[in-house]
Amino acid sequence: MKTIDMNCDMGESFGVYTLGTDEEILPYVSSANIACGFHAGDPSIMRKTVKLAIENDVAIGAHPGLPDLMGFGRRHIDLLPEEAYDIVAYQVGALWGVVQTEGGRLRHVKAHGMLYNRATQDPELADAIARAVYDIDPDLVLFGLAGGELLKAGKKIGLKTGSEVFADRTYQEDGTLTSRREANALVEDADVAGDQVIRMTDEGKVRSQQGKDVDILAETVCIHGDGPHALAFGKNIRKKIENADIDIRPIG
Amino acid sequence: MKTIDMNCDMGESFGVYTLGTDEEILPYVSSANIACGFHAGDPSIMRKTVKLAIENDVAIGAHPGLPDLMGFGRRHIDLLPEEAYDIVAYQVGALWGVVQTEGGRLRHVKAHGMLYNRATQDPELADAIARAVYDIDPDLVLFGLAGGELLKAGKKIGLKTGSEVFADRTYQEDGTLTSRREANALVEDADVAGDQVIRMTDEGKVRSQQGKDVDILAETVCIHGDGPHALAFGKNIRKKIENADIDIRPIG
Amino acid sequence: MKTIDMNCDMGESFGVYTLGTDEEILPYVSSANIACGFHAGDPSIMRKTVKLAIENDVAIGAHPGLPDLMGFGRRHIDLLPEEAYDIVAYQVGALWGVVQTEGGRLRHVKAHGMLYNRATQDPELADAIARAVYDIDPDLVLFGLAGGELLKAGKKIGLKTGSEVFADRTYQEDGTLTSRREANALVEDADVAGDQVIRMTDEGKVRSQQGKDVDILAETVCIHGDGPHALAFGKNIRKKIENADIDIRPIG
Amino acid sequence: MKTIDMNCDMGESFGVYTLGTDEEILPYVSSANIACGFHAGDPSIMRKTVKLAIENDVAIGAHPGLPDLMGFGRRHIDLLPEEAYDIVAYQVGALWGVVQTEGGRLRHVKAHGMLYNRATQDPELADAIARAVYDIDPDLVLFGLAGGELLKAGKKIGLKTGSEVFADRTYQEDGTLTSRREANALVEDADVAGDQVIRMTDEGKVRSQQGKDVDILAETVCIHGDGPHALAFGKNIRKKIENADIDIRPIG
Repeated sequence: MKTIDMNCDMGESFGVYTLGTDEEILPYVSSANIACGFHAGDPSIMRKTVKLAIENDVAIGAHPGLPDLMGFGRRHIDLLPEEAYDIVAYQVGALWGVVQTEGGRLRHVKAHGMLYNRATQDPELADAIARAVYDIDPDLVLFGLAGGELLKAGKKIGLKTGSEVFADRTYQEDGTLTSRREANALVEDADVAGDQVIRMTDEGKVRSQQGKDVDILAETVCIHGDGPHALAFGKNIRKKIENADIDIRPIG
Repeated sequence: MKTIDMNCDMGESFGVYTLGTDEEILPYVSSANIACGFHAGDPSIMRKTVKLAIENDVAIGAHPGLPDLMGFGRRHIDLLPEEAYDIVAYQVGALWGVVQTEGGRLRHVKAHGMLYNRATQDPELADAIARAVYDIDPDLVLFGLAGGELLKAGKKIGLKTGSEVFADRTYQEDGTLTSRREANALVEDADVAGDQVIRMTDEGKVRSQQGKDVDILAETVCIHGDGPHALAFGKNIRKKIENADIDIRPIG
Repeated sequence: MKTIDMNCDMGESFGVYTLGTDEEILPYVSSANIACGFHAGDPSIMRKTVKLAIENDVAIGAHPGLPDLMGFGRRHIDLLPEEAYDIVAYQVGALWGVVQTEGGRLRHVKAHGMLYNRATQDPELADAIARAVYDIDPDLVLFGLAGGELLKAGKKIGLKTGSEVFADRTYQEDGTLTSRREANALVEDADVAGDQVIRMTDEGKVRSQQGKDVDILAETVCIHGDGPHALAFGKNIRKKIENADIDIRPIG
Repeated sequence: MKTIDMNCDMGESFGVYTLGTDEEILPYVSSANIACGFHAGDPSIMRKTVKLAIENDVAIGAHPGLPDLMGFGRRHIDLLPEEAYDIVAYQVGALWGVVQTEGGRLRHVKAHGMLYNRATQDPELADAIARAVYDIDPDLVLFGLAGGELLKAGKKIGLKTGSEVFADRTYQEDGTLTSRREANALVEDADVAGDQVIRMTDEGKVRSQQGKDVDILAETVCIHGDGPHALAFGKNIRKKIENADIDIRPIG
């Protein structure tokens, strides 16, 4: 039987500010990537989110980002690889501390936003992140975009990795995501999105925007928890995956 | 043979800003309390400081503070006990992450500045801090002012504690420190300071400003790493302690 | 003809985080208190909010707060009066800069959250805030709770002041607000709230929780822009005030 | 008689952290570029620095930077031009507020660190900064690297500009500074540095690293206030300039 992990970014509220629908989406995913206070999240939000993940029996991962709350970690900051190593170690550790106090276990790490995007393409940055994760705990699973540098760096250092695909994004014939600046970057029909995930999982293939099939490894699929239709979208995809007799479970 | 721990606050630099004389003072202490990024310190400073502590075979502790870099954690912020619990879990975890990447081991926790001062007197705050430390790792040692609420809360929950005394501060007949607003709050003569530490260690007594001896438990003595004479002061005290045949070693 | 100002706190979003219903509430108020980046707001949010206020012909005021985004400026931070002076000068100036670029004019200052609450009771803090406002521009109007220290400090230094009342809060017989910790702190019926404002404006009196009338000067009434019913509440109060032939306009 | 302005970055301390030698260097310069709290500085440091500048009769300028205290504004952050506009408006306004409270006058704006470097080469970013400065006050003088995009953008919009040269940096034959990554980027001999400034002022020329003279407009020369030899270096250059009968005075 085929399996896939469904992951979702969570704990991205801050202080009085609320973002996302963590409580609603949690029952439909198997892994939670929890913000660690740099691009979003604060110590109290982190604890609340960890608690919710444990209650829903969802695997807990750290979701470290760039130190830019104002820009939500989406603006490029030109860090040295060693600086990236340090902020990952710090943030993963911080979440580990919170997870310990709730009696849970940290399972995976997924970089956020621009840190993820750059590390997908920059081998030096990818290596710094992979080393930080490995040096903290070699049993952690490193998530990264299917075919990208993060996965390569993770495998090279000896980490278990999670090859991530997107339900609601379209792909190019070289296996990369269509840029959000392009038309057709998003898959807006939940049925189409669900079918894309099922085919990636079952056949290891995705139909690119150029009309050609591309090989892709789908170990974990990212579901979005914000936006007006996120919840309906996530439920629908889960249902389709279940109906296709694919087992949904955490990688770790 | 009597023993005492000598501890020093460290890693309080931030970005391009340098504070303290960590490299110089490290050879003279047995425990380092390392700032965790809230009142001082940043992920790169933390890594550098952890590395130095390991090289000098000094026990590593977390030094969590209030979220107030501008005020260096010295201004009271009216946190709920649960907020205090959360920021301690976060910061201790963050340092744990950095320590892991350097192959070290986290041994103790000492709250910083106003968080320490308030927790010395406020049982609810002390309890929140003690619980956070215990819930992260029950083998951590909790430092607190001799006779204060932090030690009581730590013992109550089952933590090993470190009763802290000061070499360069004078005491009142109720066992509390003379307020810095008073004249005679500081011991400025290193010989007098050293003698005070030796007597506290050997006899468990300190002469108060009122001229009466007070019972005090000296398990760890705080040495300051900043200020123009800190290094000379620290060296002198260490020498006096060694000459008095007291063994200097970490509590953990 | 009697007049009153209707003010509302605004621009309290931050980065990707949205708070309040600024665009919806603006047509119903005469003064906007715009957050300045310490407890909420960021430079881009500030510009957007200033622009909206100008479009709606609403008087622009600065809403400086404590440096605590995580706590939304609602947690007490023990600042020295001179520190309070400095953060007010900084924040009012920052908003002035943004207002200049939009061709508007800064009219008033209202402290936020715990800074406002403490300054209502602490003459030294009130004096520091009043001096900062006066020293920046003696034509600015200083808002403060009716009967509180901020108004006294403002008058003493020579500022025009705005005596603030609340539509949705109940009063004690000493003229202070009922603490939010008490039952009956809030007026939840918009009709009752509107009648309270009208009576305060027309007769200078409010019925206290103890059943006794209390003298109160109503120059500006605070309307809340967040919460599920804020908009309906605000509209209703405005309508009642208009029907009572009270003129709604900015103090400045 | 020829004239030149001598400017120095100041107010770059933060909280308990001290950077630079503001008090010592102030008597030797004519313009102070004061940090505004994003890359360095805080409201209290700003007030102290403004006060010192007024006492020394030195022209006050704003020195806005990127929102990155940890990186001291030296790491590239990929801001949209409108975001740059907003953070400049905010920071210049904040310093204006502080200057008002001290009874001074804001004269010029010089971007800091990576914001300055990028705006020197990026016309869109330069335009955003120039617009923000102009929209706040068209009488402000905009500083920028001699020959760079900031000066062009400033002139185009109608601002008075200050063409900045460096005493302690070498130049390339295209008029740009030698990168700090190259050997020979720095002029370490104060006499050579002073002669370079005098020739730039008197003849409008500088000898490049390639041995060819390059045209350069020297309206303001940057003196550094940090580093072990900064003060001696600054004094020496001032003396040489004075001996060459060049009048030292602010541009504004």
